[in-house]
Amino acid sequence: MELPDVLTMQDALVRLAAYWGEQGCLTVQPMNTEVGAGTLNPATFLRVLGPEPWRVAYVEPSVRPDDARYGENPNRIQTHTQFQVILKPEPGNSQELYLGSLAALGIDVAAHDVRFVEDNWASPALGAWGLGWEVWLDGLEITQFTYFQQAGGINLDPPAVEITYGIERILMALQGVRHFKEIAYTDTVSYGELFGQGEYEMSRYYLDDADIAANRSLLQLYASEAQRMIDAGLPVPAHTYVLKCSHAFNVLDARGAVSTAERATEFARMRRLAGDVARLWMERRAELDHPLGVCAPVAVPEAVDVDLVPRGPEPRAFVCEVGTEEMPPVEGRAAAGQLAQELTARLANTRLAHGRITVRATPRRLVALVDGVAAREEDQDRVVKGPKVAAAFDSAGEPTPAVRGFARAQGVEVVDLVRQQVGNAEHMVLVRREIGRGAPEVLAGVVEGAVAALRSGRNMRWNDPKLAFTRPIRWLLALWGDQVVPARVSALVADRRTRVLRTAPTPEIAVESAESYVEAVEAAGIVLDHADRRTRIVEGSRTLAAGVGGHVDVDGERGLIEQVAFLVEQPAPLLGRFDDSYLSLPEAVLATVMRKHQRYLPVRGADGRLLPYFVAVANGPVHADLVRAGNEAVLRARYEDALFFYRTDRETPLAQMRAKLARLTFTDRLGSVAERADRIAALARRLADEVGLDGPDRAVLDRAATLVKFDLGSQLVTEMTSLAGTMARDYAAHAGEPAAVAEALFEAERPRNTEDALPRGVAGELLSVADRLDLLTGLAATVGLPTGSSDQFALRRAALGLLGVFRRRPVLAPVSLREALRLAADLQPVPVSDDVLEAVAEFVTRRFEQQLTEEEQPVDRIRAVLPHADRPHFLDRTLAQLDKLVDQAGFQQLTEALQRARRIVPAGTPAQYDPGVLVEPAEVALHDALVWARAGLGDAPDLDRFVEATGGIVRPVNTFFDDVFVMVDDERLRQARLGLLASVADLGTPVLAWEHLRM
Amino acid sequence: MELPDVLTMQDALVRLAAYWGEQGCLTVQPMNTEVGAGTLNPATFLRVLGPEPWRVAYVEPSVRPDDARYGENPNRIQTHTQFQVILKPEPGNSQELYLGSLAALGIDVAAHDVRFVEDNWASPALGAWGLGWEVWLDGLEITQFTYFQQAGGINLDPPAVEITYGIERILMALQGVRHFKEIAYTDTVSYGELFGQGEYEMSRYYLDDADIAANRSLLQLYASEAQRMIDAGLPVPAHTYVLKCSHAFNVLDARGAVSTAERATEFARMRRLAGDVARLWMERRAELDHPLGVCAPVAVPEAVDVDLVPRGPEPRAFVCEVGTEEMPPVEGRAAAGQLAQELTARLANTRLAHGRITVRATPRRLVALVDGVAAREEDQDRVVKGPKVAAAFDSAGEPTPAVRGFARAQGVEVVDLVRQQVGNAEHMVLVRREIGRGAPEVLAGVVEGAVAALRSGRNMRWNDPKLAFTRPIRWLLALWGDQVVPARVSALVADRRTRVLRTAPTPEIAVESAESYVEAVEAAGIVLDHADRRTRIVEGSRTLAAGVGGHVDVDGERGLIEQVAFLVEQPAPLLGRFDDSYLSLPEAVLATVMRKHQRYLPVRGADGRLLPYFVAVANGPVHADLVRAGNEAVLRARYEDALFFYRTDRETPLAQMRAKLARLTFTDRLGSVAERADRIAALARRLADEVGLDGPDRAVLDRAATLVKFDLGSQLVTEMTSLAGTMARDYAAHAGEPAAVAEALFEAERPRNTEDALPRGVAGELLSVADRLDLLTGLAATVGLPTGSSDQFALRRAALGLLGVFRRRPVLAPVSLREALRLAADLQPVPVSDDVLEAVAEFVTRRFEQQLTEEEQPVDRIRAVLPHADRPHFLDRTLAQLDKLVDQAGFQQLTEALQRARRIVPAGTPAQYDPGVLVEPAEVALHDALVWARAGLGDAPDLDRFVEATGGIVRPVNTFFDDVFVMVDDERLRQARLGLLASVADLGTPVLAWEHLRM
Repeated sequence: MELPDVLTMQDALVRLAAYWGEQGCLTVQPMNTEVGAGTLNPATFLRVLGPEPWRVAYVEPSVRPDDARYGENPNRIQTHTQFQVILKPEPGNSQELYLGSLAALGIDVAAHDVRFVEDNWASPALGAWGLGWEVWLDGLEITQFTYFQQAGGINLDPPAVEITYGIERILMALQGVRHFKEIAYTDTVSYGELFGQGEYEMSRYYLDDADIAANRSLLQLYASEAQRMIDAGLPVPAHTYVLKCSHAFNVLDARGAVSTAERATEFARMRRLAGDVARLWMERRAELDHPLGVCAPVAVPEAVDVDLVPRGPEPRAFVCEVGTEEMPPVEGRAAAGQLAQELTARLANTRLAHGRITVRATPRRLVALVDGVAAREEDQDRVVKGPKVAAAFDSAGEPTPAVRGFARAQGVEVVDLVRQQVGNAEHMVLVRREIGRGAPEVLAGVVEGAVAALRSGRNMRWNDPKLAFTRPIRWLLALWGDQVVPARVSALVADRRTRVLRTAPTPEIAVESAESYVEAVEAAGIVLDHADRRTRIVEGSRTLAAGVGGHVDVDGERGLIEQVAFLVEQPAPLLGRFDDSYLSLPEAVLATVMRKHQRYLPVRGADGRLLPYFVAVANGPVHADLVRAGNEAVLRARYEDALFFYRTDRETPLAQMRAKLARLTFTDRLGSVAERADRIAALARRLADEVGLDGPDRAVLDRAATLVKFDLGSQLVTEMTSLAGTMARDYAAHAGEPAAVAEALFEAERPRNTEDALPRGVAGELLSVADRLDLLTGLAATVGLPTGSSDQFALRRAALGLLGVFRRRPVLAPVSLREALRLAADLQPVPVSDDVLEAVAEFVTRRFEQQLTEEEQPVDRIRAVLPHADRPHFLDRTLAQLDKLVDQAGFQQLTEALQRARRIVPAGTPAQYDPGVLVEPAEVALHDALVWARAGLGDAPDLDRFVEATGGIVRPVNTFFDDVFVMVDDERLRQARLGLLASVADLGTPVLAWEHLRM
Repeated sequence: MELPDVLTMQDALVRLAAYWGEQGCLTVQPMNTEVGAGTLNPATFLRVLGPEPWRVAYVEPSVRPDDARYGENPNRIQTHTQFQVILKPEPGNSQELYLGSLAALGIDVAAHDVRFVEDNWASPALGAWGLGWEVWLDGLEITQFTYFQQAGGINLDPPAVEITYGIERILMALQGVRHFKEIAYTDTVSYGELFGQGEYEMSRYYLDDADIAANRSLLQLYASEAQRMIDAGLPVPAHTYVLKCSHAFNVLDARGAVSTAERATEFARMRRLAGDVARLWMERRAELDHPLGVCAPVAVPEAVDVDLVPRGPEPRAFVCEVGTEEMPPVEGRAAAGQLAQELTARLANTRLAHGRITVRATPRRLVALVDGVAAREEDQDRVVKGPKVAAAFDSAGEPTPAVRGFARAQGVEVVDLVRQQVGNAEHMVLVRREIGRGAPEVLAGVVEGAVAALRSGRNMRWNDPKLAFTRPIRWLLALWGDQVVPARVSALVADRRTRVLRTAPTPEIAVESAESYVEAVEAAGIVLDHADRRTRIVEGSRTLAAGVGGHVDVDGERGLIEQVAFLVEQPAPLLGRFDDSYLSLPEAVLATVMRKHQRYLPVRGADGRLLPYFVAVANGPVHADLVRAGNEAVLRARYEDALFFYRTDRETPLAQMRAKLARLTFTDRLGSVAERADRIAALARRLADEVGLDGPDRAVLDRAATLVKFDLGSQLVTEMTSLAGTMARDYAAHAGEPAAVAEALFEAERPRNTEDALPRGVAGELLSVADRLDLLTGLAATVGLPTGSSDQFALRRAALGLLGVFRRRPVLAPVSLREALRLAADLQPVPVSDDVLEAVAEFVTRRFEQQLTEEEQPVDRIRAVLPHADRPHFLDRTLAQLDKLVDQAGFQQLTEALQRARRIVPAGTPAQYDPGVLVEPAEVALHDALVWARAGLGDAPDLDRFVEATGGIVRPVNTFFDDVFVMVDDERLRQARLGLLASVADLGTPVLAWEHLRM
C-alpha cells in the first residue's frame, strides 16, 4: 500500500534501542513465551529484585487476548509492541532521559505538550506495584513511567524506573494514521500487511476457538511445574511457568470462562508462586555473590555556599521550595497543607521571630514563604542549679568540694556562681546567657525536619537512603534573604537553584533572594498559586467556549478544573474540535471520554447540550496548533473506538446481545451472567406479584425483565462498564422498545454508588432490588459475606443500593427484607440456609445502621428504630415521626413513663396480670388507662398513632410510681403490679425500642 | 569481570540488523514461544511459502534442551542466539551479500579463510529441507546458509535463501575467548554474568527436573489444539501450537523419555500438522490476494556481443565454463564427468570438426575445453526426392504438372532438378547443398543442451525459471576463439566474463579468448585441475609435516585429500598445532574430530602415532597466521569439549555410566537401554552355555556382559556415537578392568558396518551376536521388520553383522540361527510368536542370499547351499567344498546322476522300495551301490564326505537309465523302480539342493 514518508516503526525501534544503548542499557530479546507485558520478562521481573545494578532496554510483543478484535478496531490489538526500559538504580534524572528519547524519535518536546499524569500500577498476580505516570503527548498516552516499588511481594531496594512505550500508539500519532494497520512498518510494508492476518487469526483463537478444557489443563500443568521448580530451588524455570500460567489464564478469561471466584483463586496462586520465585531469585543471587555487583550508595553532593552567620541584622523573607517530580493532584494539595503545618509547628519551637507563612503548590513544587524572619533567635538566660548554699561553704566560709566540683564541671570559677532560691531552698546556681542562633542555622533545622516529615497517602521510595513521598523529591531551595539556608535532608542539599518548565530555554535557574523568589519563578512562567491557575483555566475556557457560541459549565466541572489546576504549572487552555458526527454518540459516552480519560472540559450550547468542542489545558508555551491537532486526534480515536462499538451494538439485535451473557461466567457456582439475569427477572416478577403490581406497569416490568442486563453483552459496555444501563436504555429505545421499558432497563442499574439517584419507575425499582437481592443471597451462600476491607463483589454497595430503594420508595413497603431475601434465595442454583439468610439480613442491617449514622441521625433514635430494619420504609417513617416528636413535652413524658416502667420490671416478667388483684386507686387507674390506650391502637404499629393513643397513660404511670409500692411482700399483688408495669412497657415495643431514647 | 576491548555481542547484533536493514530486510521480533531455531518462527516457516516476496532479519534465541550442559561446557548452551535472514526471492548474489555482512562485523574476509562447505538441511518434523552450506571462518562453522526448497512438504516457489548466524560462536571467535561465558555482551557485562544463572537453571530443568508426565500431557494438549485450529482453518495459531509440540517433544527427548518408536510417531504427527499448516497458509494468502504482492519473474539479461558468424575460417579452441556456487565435492566431480559426456555426445550430433575434449572442475566451476573446433560445420548435400522420371515429363518431353509442382514447392525451377536412381526407380530429385553453420551457432546449441541437462544426485531450485542442479549456476562463459558463443539457457546468457576468487582484487574478469582461458583463470589464482590441487595439498602437507619431524599418511588419507581438493580452488595448506595435552585423548577421538569435523590432515610421527599438529587447507591467499590461529582455536574448542567429556567420563565409575542407561528409552515396549543391555548379557551367557564356553574365556564373557554398552551412558559417546565401543574399551581399561574384558566390550559393537572388522575374541563374538539377535527379535515382535527403503533401526545391518560372526567364526557352529533367535525371543519383555521368529529367520536368510550374491558366488551354488542358511558356518564350508568340486568331472557326473534321478521321479514318490521286486541286473546293481554309499555317509552331512561316499553310484545310475525301462505296466515293479530312484535322489538332500546346480 501507499505509505507516508515518515519515521517507520522499524526505524523507531532502532532509534529507541540506540538511544537507550547510549545511556548504558543492555539490549535483550523479548521473552520466548507469551507475556502480557514487558514487565513479565525476567529482564524486568527478576532483575529489579535485589541490590544489583541493571539497565536494560528491549522490545516486548505483549499479548493481551482480551484486546483481540479481529484486527477490526483501529486502536485495539491482541499483540501490541512495547519498548521497555529499566533503570536501576533510578538515576535521578530519568524523566529528562525519557524526554531525550522522545527527541531521539524526532519529537520536538518543547513544541508538544508532554505531561506526566498520575498513574499507579499494580499487578495483583505478581505481587508487584509502583507509582508513576502515564506520559501524555498532546493528550495521548504514549508511555507508562513507573517507579517500581515491589515485585513478588518484595520491596525493591533500590527501586527501579520502568519506562514502557506503547509503540503502535506513538507511531500512529507520529505518522498521523487512524488505524494501526496503516502504520508504515517500513517504507514499503504496512503494519496491516505484515501482521493483519495474524491479528485476525489469533483473535479468532482467543475469542472464539481456544478450547477451554485444554487451556484449563494447561493452566494446571503450568502451575504444577512452576511449583515443582520452586521446590527444586530453580527460580528461572519456575518463573517461565508462572508466565505460562498467566497467559493460559488470560486465554480463559478472553473466552469468558473465568468466574470471579476462579479469578481470585488463580490470582492468589500466581501471586504466591511469583512471590516464591522472587524470594528464590534473591537467594540465588546472594549465593552467586551478585554477579553484576551491588549498586553504589547514593552520592550526596557537597554543600556549597554554607554560611551559618546571618549576613545582616535585619529580618528577611524566607523561602523553602521542595522540588518534586509530578505529584498527583490530590497529593500535591495535601502536601502543601502538611508543609504549612510542619513549618508553623517547627518555627514555633524556635525563638526565631517571623511573620506570615504562606504555602503554594504546583505539580512539581511545594513552596513555603515566610515574611520577616528575624536574623537571630532572641537571647535567653538559662539557670544551672548547683548545691544548696548550706552545703556550699564550710564553717570557715570556704567553698566546699561540692561547690568547687560543680563550678569545675560547668567550666567556671566559684565566684561566677550566684545564690538563687530554687524550690524551698537557696542554691548556688550558674546563670548562663544563651545567645540566639542565626536564622540560617535555625531555618536549616526547621527545613530538615519539615521535609523529612513529608508523607502522602501513598508513599514511594526512590534512590534516596531515607526519604519516602508521593513522588521523588529532586531538589531543595531554601533561602533566608539572599543567603542559602544550609539544610541537608538525606541526600538532598539545599541551595538557591530551582527548576522551571522543562522546556524553558534555561530549565534550571538560580534565585537571588527569598524576596525575589516569586518574581523569579513566575518570570520563568510558573504560576505558583493554584487559585491563579484555576482562574486562568476558567477564564481561558470561558473565552474559548464563547468564541464558538458555547460555554463551559464551570460549576458542574469544578472537580475536574481543580484537578487540572494541579496537573499544570502554567495552564494554557486550548480549544479543540471534534467532528459533528460524533455527537450522535450518547452524551454519557462523549462526556465520560472527555472528562475521565482526557480531562478535557466539555463545551455546551445555550440549551446545555454538548457542542463539538472541548477545552484541553496544556502546560506552558506549546505550539498550539500542533498540540490542538494532537488532542483532537486522541479524542477522535477514542470516539472512533466508541462509535465503532456503538454502531456495531446498534446493529445487533437485543436478543443477540442478551444471548452473549451465556458466555460470561458470573461465578463458578452461580453460573453465567445470563443465568443471573434470568434470576433477576424471575425475582422481580415474584416481587411484583407480592406487591400486587398490574396494569401497564406490570407489562413494562415483564418486558424489561426479559432484557435486563442485556447490554453487558454489548461491545461498548464491555469497554466502558460504567455505561451499563445507560447503553441498555439507548439500545432498547433504538430497537423500538417502549420508552418505559428502556427507562426501566436504565434504572435497573441504579443506584451505581451512594451519590447516584434511585430508580423512579416501579419496574426499574423492582429490577434494581432484584439484582441486589440476587447478588447478596447468591454470594453469601457460596463465597461468603465480605469481612475486613476486601469486598470484591461490592456487596456493601449492593446492600446500600437495596436499602436505598426499600427505604425511599413506597412500592416495596408490603415486603419485608427477609421475605425478599427468601424469595431470592429460592431462585439460587445452590441451597441457601436460614443461617445464611439471617447473616445477610444482619449484614444489611449493619449497613442500614451505618447509613443512618452517616445521615447524622442521633444514635439513640437509630437504635430505637433499628428493630424495624426489616421494613426500611417503615423505619424511615418512624424515624421521621420521631424527629417531629422528640421536642414535644408530651412525647418526652411518654418516653420517660415507658422507660420507667421498663426499668423496674425484671427481665422475663410476663406482661400479664389479674386486674382483680389490684387494690390501690393509682394502680386501678393505670389499668384503666392501659385498656383505654390499647383500644386506641390500630393493627399496624405507627408511632404517631401510638403517641396519640397512649398520651393518656403518662399521668397514671407517674401517679402509680408516686403512690404504689410495687415490691410488696404479698406475692400475688407484687406479681400483678409487675405484670401491669410490664404491660405498660410492652405497649410500646412494636413501635420503638424505647429504652434507647435519650430525652 | 574484566572484558576485552572488542566488538560486543550487543553491537554485533545491532550491526547485523543495520546491515540487513540496508539490504531491504524487515526486522521482526523473536517468536514468543520456545523454538529450536529461527526457521520455526512464522517469519520464516510461513513466509517462505507461496509467491509473495519477503526479506526479513531477526534475532532468535534458540532453545535446544538437548544442548543443556549446566553452563559448564565452554561451547554448548541450551539457548543460543541465532541471527536469521530470509531473502525471497533469492537475489542471485546472496553469498556476496553475506560476505558483506561479515565485513560489517569488522571481519576482513580477504585475510580470513571463509568457505562454503556442503551442508544440507532437513527437518523431518517440519517436512522441510534445503541445500546449502555451513560457512567456515578459518575452520569454524559460523553460519548455516541454505537454499530453502520445501516447507511443510510444499515446494517453495520461488525458493528462499536462509542465512542463520551462530552469534555466540562468531563472537567467541572475534573476541578470542574460550568459554561462552567470557563473551563481552557489552563493554561492561559478560555473557556469563548475564545468562549464566539461567543457563544453569534451565539445564537443570531440561536434563533433570522437567516432569515427564506433565510434558507428555503438554505435548498431547498442544497437538490437539494444533489440530483443532487446523480444522478451524487458522494456520497462525495452529503453527504456534506445532511449535509448542516441538518444544515439549524436545524437553522429553532431553529427559531421555522418548523411545525410537515414539520419536517416529511424534515426528510423523508434527510433519502432518506442519504440512496442514503450510497448506492452509497458502490458501489464506491466496484468499487475501497476497497482501505483499507476488515476486516479479526473473529478469533475463540482454545478450551482448552476439555474433553468429565466425570471425575467421581457422579452427579455434572452444571453452565453456559453467559457474556455480560451491558444489559438494562429490557432486562437482560427477558433474564434470556429466558435462564431458553431454558435450561429446552433442558435438557428435553436429558436423563440427573438433579435437580433444578436456573437462575440469573446481568447487565453483565446471569447465570444458575443446581443441581445434572448426569455424563451420562441413557442408553437405541433401537429396529431395521428386516424381519418378517416367511421370515427370509428358510425351512431348515437357515437364508434367507433377514435376512442376514439386519444383515450385522446393522453390526451384525444373531445370534445377537432376535425375537420380532412388530405390528401384529413377526419380527427378533436388540436390540441396546444405552449408554448415558457423561454430558460434552450433556451439550455442551444444552448450544450451549440455547445461540444461546437468543434474546432480540431489538437485535444488533457485531463482531460475527452469534449471535445477546441485547448487545454483550463476554464470556461463562460452568462447570459440575470441568470440562469445551466444548460448542462452533459461535466465543465463553466456558471455566472456568469469568469476575468480571472491577475495581477489578483481573478482570478475573478462577472458579474451578460449585459447587464453586457462592462463587467464590460473593467473587469477584458480587451480583448474583437481589433480594439480591434490598435488599441491599432498606436497604442501608433506613439506609442512616434515618441518616438524612428521609426515602425513597420504595413502591412508586419500579420500579426505580428494574431498579437500574439491573444497578449494587454490589450495593453501597451513600447519596448525594443538596443545600436547590433548594427546591424552584417545587417537580415535583426535582423528575423528580432525578428519570428520574439520577436514584437517593429521600429522604423525615415525612410529605412526599422532603428533600435536595438523594440516588445514585454506582457499587462496589468506593471512596465514590469522587463519592458522583461527583453525587452531576451533580444534582447541573441539578438543576442549572432548577432553571435558573424556575427563568427566573417566572420573565416572563404570557402574554409574551403566546405571544411566536406565534413563535412556530404547523403545516404549522394549524398555530402557539398560534393559536391553541386560538382555544382551543374559543371551550372551545362554549362548556361552550352548557352545560350552568355560575357563578364562567364560570369565571374560561374564564380566564383559555385566558392562556391555555401558559407554552409551558416557558423555563422549553421547556426543560422538561413532565412538561407542571404542570408548568402552578405553574407560574399562582405565577403570582397571582386564584387557580382555575391555577388548570384548569394544568388540561387542563390531561390526559397525559392512566394512568393519568382525570381533576376534569369543566374548566379543558372543556379545556382538547377542546384541543383534536381541535387536532383531525384539523389534520384529513389536515394530515389525523393515519393508521398502526405510529401516530406522538398521535391522538389515544387524542381520548382516549377525551373519558375519555366525559365518566366519567357528565358535557358534553348534548353534543354529533359529535356536539362537529362540533364545533371544525368550528374553524379550513381549511375547514373540513362532511366526515372527520364522519371519526373522527368513529375513536373515534373504540378507544371507544377498550377501552371497554380492560376494559374487554363482547363483546356482547359492541356491544349492541356501537350505543351510540356518547354520551359516556350515553353509560357508559347504560352499567352499562346492567351489573345489565343481570343476571335477566326478562331481559333475554325480550331480548329473542325482539330478537325473530326481527329474524322473514324480513329486511325492516315497523314497522306499522292496529290493526283492527288482529284477534287472542294472537295477539290482544300483540298489547295491546305494546301500554301499549309504554306509559311507557319516551322521552329519558333509559335502566332501558325501561325494567320496557316493562316487560309486554314478555308473550304476547311468547303467540303470540305459538298461531299465522304469514305467512298466507291472505296478509293483514300477513302484519299486521309482522308489529306488527316489532313494538315490534323496541321498543328497541333506547336503545340497542339487537341483539348482548348473554343471
